[in-house]
Amino acid sequence: MHIYLYLYRVVLLTGLLLGCSQAKSQSSHNGEDGYRTWLRYELVDDQQLLHSYKNQIQQVQVTTGTPTMQVVEAELFRGLTGLFGTTVENSPKLNSNGTLLLGTPENSPLIASLDFNKKLEQLGTEGFLIEEKKLQGHQCIVITANTDLGVLYGTFHFLRLLQTHQNINDLEIVSAPQCKLRLANHWDNLDRSVERGYAGRSLWEWSTLPEYAHPRYTDFARISASIGINGVAINNVNADARFITSQFLTKIETLANIFRPYGVKVYLAINYSSPVTLGGLKTADPLNSEVIDWWEKKTAEIYSRIPDFGGFLVKADSEGQPGPKTYGRNHAEGANMLAEIIKPFGGIVIWRAFVYGERQADRVREAYDEFVPLDGKFADNVVLQIKNGPLDFMPREPFSPLFGALPHTNTMIEFQVTQEYLGNANHLLYKGHMFKETLDADTYAKGKGTTVAKVLSGEVYDYPISGMTAVVNPGTDRNWTRHPFVQSSWYAFGRLAWDYQLDAEQLADEWIQQTFSNNETVVKTIKKIMLQSDEAAVKFREPLGLTHIGTSSHYGPAPWSNRSKRFHQADDYGIGFNRTKNGSQAVEQYFSPLNEIYNDIDRVPEKYLLWFHHVSWSHQMKSGRTLWEELVHKYYNGVETVRQMQQEWNLLEGQIDEQRFLHVKALLKIQEKDAVIWRNSCVLYFQTFSQKPIPAGLEKPEFDLNYYKQLEHRIYISE
Amino acid sequence: MHIYLYLYRVVLLTGLLLGCSQAKSQSSHNGEDGYRTWLRYELVDDQQLLHSYKNQIQQVQVTTGTPTMQVVEAELFRGLTGLFGTTVENSPKLNSNGTLLLGTPENSPLIASLDFNKKLEQLGTEGFLIEEKKLQGHQCIVITANTDLGVLYGTFHFLRLLQTHQNINDLEIVSAPQCKLRLANHWDNLDRSVERGYAGRSLWEWSTLPEYAHPRYTDFARISASIGINGVAINNVNADARFITSQFLTKIETLANIFRPYGVKVYLAINYSSPVTLGGLKTADPLNSEVIDWWEKKTAEIYSRIPDFGGFLVKADSEGQPGPKTYGRNHAEGANMLAEIIKPFGGIVIWRAFVYGERQADRVREAYDEFVPLDGKFADNVVLQIKNGPLDFMPREPFSPLFGALPHTNTMIEFQVTQEYLGNANHLLYKGHMFKETLDADTYAKGKGTTVAKVLSGEVYDYPISGMTAVVNPGTDRNWTRHPFVQSSWYAFGRLAWDYQLDAEQLADEWIQQTFSNNETVVKTIKKIMLQSDEAAVKFREPLGLTHIGTSSHYGPAPWSNRSKRFHQADDYGIGFNRTKNGSQAVEQYFSPLNEIYNDIDRVPEKYLLWFHHVSWSHQMKSGRTLWEELVHKYYNGVETVRQMQQEWNLLEGQIDEQRFLHVKALLKIQEKDAVIWRNSCVLYFQTFSQKPIPAGLEKPEFDLNYYKQLEHRIYISE
Repeated sequence: MHIYLYLYRVVLLTGLLLGCSQAKSQSSHNGEDGYRTWLRYELVDDQQLLHSYKNQIQQVQVTTGTPTMQVVEAELFRGLTGLFGTTVENSPKLNSNGTLLLGTPENSPLIASLDFNKKLEQLGTEGFLIEEKKLQGHQCIVITANTDLGVLYGTFHFLRLLQTHQNINDLEIVSAPQCKLRLANHWDNLDRSVERGYAGRSLWEWSTLPEYAHPRYTDFARISASIGINGVAINNVNADARFITSQFLTKIETLANIFRPYGVKVYLAINYSSPVTLGGLKTADPLNSEVIDWWEKKTAEIYSRIPDFGGFLVKADSEGQPGPKTYGRNHAEGANMLAEIIKPFGGIVIWRAFVYGERQADRVREAYDEFVPLDGKFADNVVLQIKNGPLDFMPREPFSPLFGALPHTNTMIEFQVTQEYLGNANHLLYKGHMFKETLDADTYAKGKGTTVAKVLSGEVYDYPISGMTAVVNPGTDRNWTRHPFVQSSWYAFGRLAWDYQLDAEQLADEWIQQTFSNNETVVKTIKKIMLQSDEAAVKFREPLGLTHIGTSSHYGPAPWSNRSKRFHQADDYGIGFNRTKNGSQAVEQYFSPLNEIYNDIDRVPEKYLLWFHHVSWSHQMKSGRTLWEELVHKYYNGVETVRQMQQEWNLLEGQIDEQRFLHVKALLKIQEKDAVIWRNSCVLYFQTFSQKPIPAGLEKPEFDLNYYKQLEHRIYISE
Repeated sequence: MHIYLYLYRVVLLTGLLLGCSQAKSQSSHNGEDGYRTWLRYELVDDQQLLHSYKNQIQQVQVTTGTPTMQVVEAELFRGLTGLFGTTVENSPKLNSNGTLLLGTPENSPLIASLDFNKKLEQLGTEGFLIEEKKLQGHQCIVITANTDLGVLYGTFHFLRLLQTHQNINDLEIVSAPQCKLRLANHWDNLDRSVERGYAGRSLWEWSTLPEYAHPRYTDFARISASIGINGVAINNVNADARFITSQFLTKIETLANIFRPYGVKVYLAINYSSPVTLGGLKTADPLNSEVIDWWEKKTAEIYSRIPDFGGFLVKADSEGQPGPKTYGRNHAEGANMLAEIIKPFGGIVIWRAFVYGERQADRVREAYDEFVPLDGKFADNVVLQIKNGPLDFMPREPFSPLFGALPHTNTMIEFQVTQEYLGNANHLLYKGHMFKETLDADTYAKGKGTTVAKVLSGEVYDYPISGMTAVVNPGTDRNWTRHPFVQSSWYAFGRLAWDYQLDAEQLADEWIQQTFSNNETVVKTIKKIMLQSDEAAVKFREPLGLTHIGTSSHYGPAPWSNRSKRFHQADDYGIGFNRTKNGSQAVEQYFSPLNEIYNDIDRVPEKYLLWFHHVSWSHQMKSGRTLWEELVHKYYNGVETVRQMQQEWNLLEGQIDEQRFLHVKALLKIQEKDAVIWRNSCVLYFQTFSQKPIPAGLEKPEFDLNYYKQLEHRIYISE
């Protein structure tokens, strides 16, 4: 208790000394609780820079009138007020240098007079332009676009420049998103539990909708729009049919109304059996006319309430979910029925490619085997949503071979921001590099340089619709994601969906600067921790291409479980899953030369070694170590890295707000404890096969294997 | 959207104009989200009063050193800083008039010099004294007590005076609690769901305990202590045995450490079968020596971690919970085994009297029939926890006849703050009068004036331990209770447990002043709404002593259900449950003259009429109406009152913060809708028996009975 009280007093005093800044005093009073995410708009603490910003932005002229332009105005003034600590005049007249001018040529005669037409032609419906201009003799910064939404994106971009203390002289920024679909999937259930969410309950407070518009709905929309997200599937892909009852559509309509000005469309995951469950029909066969009738009526009802409804998201014939196969129809027939119905309304059908049964010896083959034969059979408003790897959001997987293998099927990727297999909301993890590893991967589908990202942007096959989605976890926890750093992956995902060329390190910088501080030491320290976090997470769990060796809760280790054994295949000879031409032949799903490289034990990247090969314990690795030694080395190194992260975090004491400092410090303690459990469980278990010692100089596991085995049955509560 | 944006801008500007006040700017920035409950410490907006306060409190002298005195200091400065908008000096020297002096004679030589001994003798271990004194020639206000905890209670009391803008001249306040046990019961489950909670998940974040001390734990302790709560049973009485595993005790220890300086002891609800479930024994028979051994070891383990552990709370042999009866032992034998074990540690056993089976024709008789024969058999560190009414937290029940009927058994009452049968967290309700109705009820156990409150305070039977508990609902929702007004019942409960003579109206005033505003119109308007809310809640649901006619979720109406029929007994003749001497004879459980009064259809208070009597539809009521007309009148009047509450609330627009104004406005809309559903369901259903018309001039139900019947199956999500 002592330390808390002491800190509380320090914080109180600090707050008082800082004086009037609204944002400061709020964070001093409560500590920084993370609610504001990266939209904190803290006072610019570099006096010279602040002076220069104030000089460049002496007044604002923003055309309002539409709901989106009102949002632009509100966000801009919220931002400037916080950043400057003073109000900026909102003036209808251009009467001084240093005017920030926002609008479209359509709603602002001044902007129309500037002849941006040529530049605007490249921007489409969402891109924006930020440019310094002389106008009626006055120096102005103009934020413009073809649409109000483009102006909003430009506004968020401009506020990001200020929040990260960028130079705003001579601005000339042209930006348009590379992916049309930039979505988030919420695995939220009707009872407000969130599958793999770990951050409290669902944001959608069904008991008070539609009457009550909780302020979080608006803040959620702001957060989403600030990183370019333009659609959210608000419910779990393991879908409860009742989401599309009239009772719930009334509630969802209210959410859609709140999201609309922010350019965030609502999508709904549907249950394929709805015509039976809700409609009382005897079948949900997609070719049955009563079924088609039922879906037509339901779709019309949805659009009557939500005219810009995005479309349906479907998990069919997978993990027990119903689907067209029950009725002898294939995925294309199943999807196209819905696609045809929704097309006149401008909607789409997102069909998940995550399907597997127990029929095949190698689960990672299944999605490819199922969908490649259907290429070209899907309607043009169907898009196939494919997880980044062929298995299931493992700490590391090679990219799914479906990317590039579907020239005639709209394709989008499904990433996971929430940390299902990665310590849930207890572990510090930044997924920027993980996303980039997949996006930058070369599929060789049309020769060298055919990266996954280019497939998703439609550059490779000219898909009419394509893009990226991520399973996110914001919930009722005050800071949205429980672990404050889950926000960093949410942020990076959105930014990459807008521009896949952005660098994971740069995005880390941006996120830290906006979320914590612009102080160089702070940024450097936190960035170092973030950039170590992903490799550490892989190393202490599943290094060298190992996979799926966790408990059924997906939190702790269970290499001894039957499921795990199917994946790691450890035996007296060695370890790893043989997916070569002599094994499951999954390598053949990749284009040349990847198929040859992955097939070759000497050429396959070591990070994927045990994914593709069953390898002898004494196999010599590039490091000169044997496989056993290398495996042990990785596990130990993973734990060491977590300990380094702890030490580095401790350097931040007094450099950032105490609330988050103490929170993350405590969580890192949990992470270190868990990492040791993973390491010791796996090393001791695999040792029963390798029969080799833990190399000298490494700390001995504190307990024996039996101890770690019984830990599997600890009570673990993720809510 | 328009209105929200507009309001947002107004709020922002207001925040800026208000300037430096930390508390103000925080609430302006976020709106007022309810997190601070009644501990808001808003700037005193009456300039003259502020000036006078500042004059009277120019400096503070507080002895620290112990954890509780540090808490005193922190709370005091937090409060004064907010209320005054400036810092107050914390001075070790008495160098001016206007010193606030805090401490005990033991830790403050100055206070010791004041010779308060005589007054302190009356105060016990928790009472406090606030008195103006001249000291070394300087005018001082002294807050003192026999213990640090007493000083803390005095500090909260003093801050309450300031928050409610009371005159603090010539203070001479002596206050000591009437009840020793002032507890809260949290029906929190191990998976963080909360039975009948309706405000998000459990406050206890098990996944990050013990490493992470969530700031809410401290704020929860502050809130509890501020109203005198001195213990919390942190888990559901339907108890998961795993709460007392070592894994969880480590976590609970951290909570206890945080609560300790605030005088809040931890109690645990236990599962009576734990020796079987956790210990692997074959029995949980309280007379079995292995069972006794097991509990001895477990109790010692608990006390080794939590030296001031409060004790066990047991729901045994009720609603499927295990208990001593399984082994042929009675409740006393079951409780005494634990009591003997825990006694050396200073702990107690709280045994719930809420037991019933399906064996009796009248459930309300059962607790009395079960426990009165056991009076005198319970150990002196066992206390029987009895719900306020003999049934189950119904909107209105007569008090339980067990109060007063157990001269030799320690007795405490169990109220419910959470609104299980009263609209959950969707409806505005203030339970102050409901609590008082029970506390002020005369049991006549020792003649006139033997009120329930006096039984609970130990004035009637000199119980060594006794008191009050309430089932509360604070959860992870930002404002703790979801409906902002549930806080008002939480507040009133705590204050009444300290002093049952307090008035429900005064407590409403206090709560409003601290929670909303000291503005007279605001206080008057909100108070009017609160004081109507309880009768309205009874009227539109279960007027005239009707009971238990809700759905199985306890939210909506279902008078047609089999359970409801057992309770209302409506038939062609009339309605009501015959508990007279000619019926179930439950009236005989009350002392004379209550038994005669309740037995007499002409003397029984009409609010309990149908609780005790089966009454003809044409029975003439005091109003001159027939029973049918009166029943209909009550139902309609209940709805009308809710509509009045809506209108009155609307008057507050612009008078209080927008965030809560809009929130409660939306919730009142839900409440009105629900009230109409209750009214129409009940009136239409009972009409099928009475065969009488709805009196002329009343609005006709919009739909027929079948419509309302199917509403019972609406999806209702309370989380």
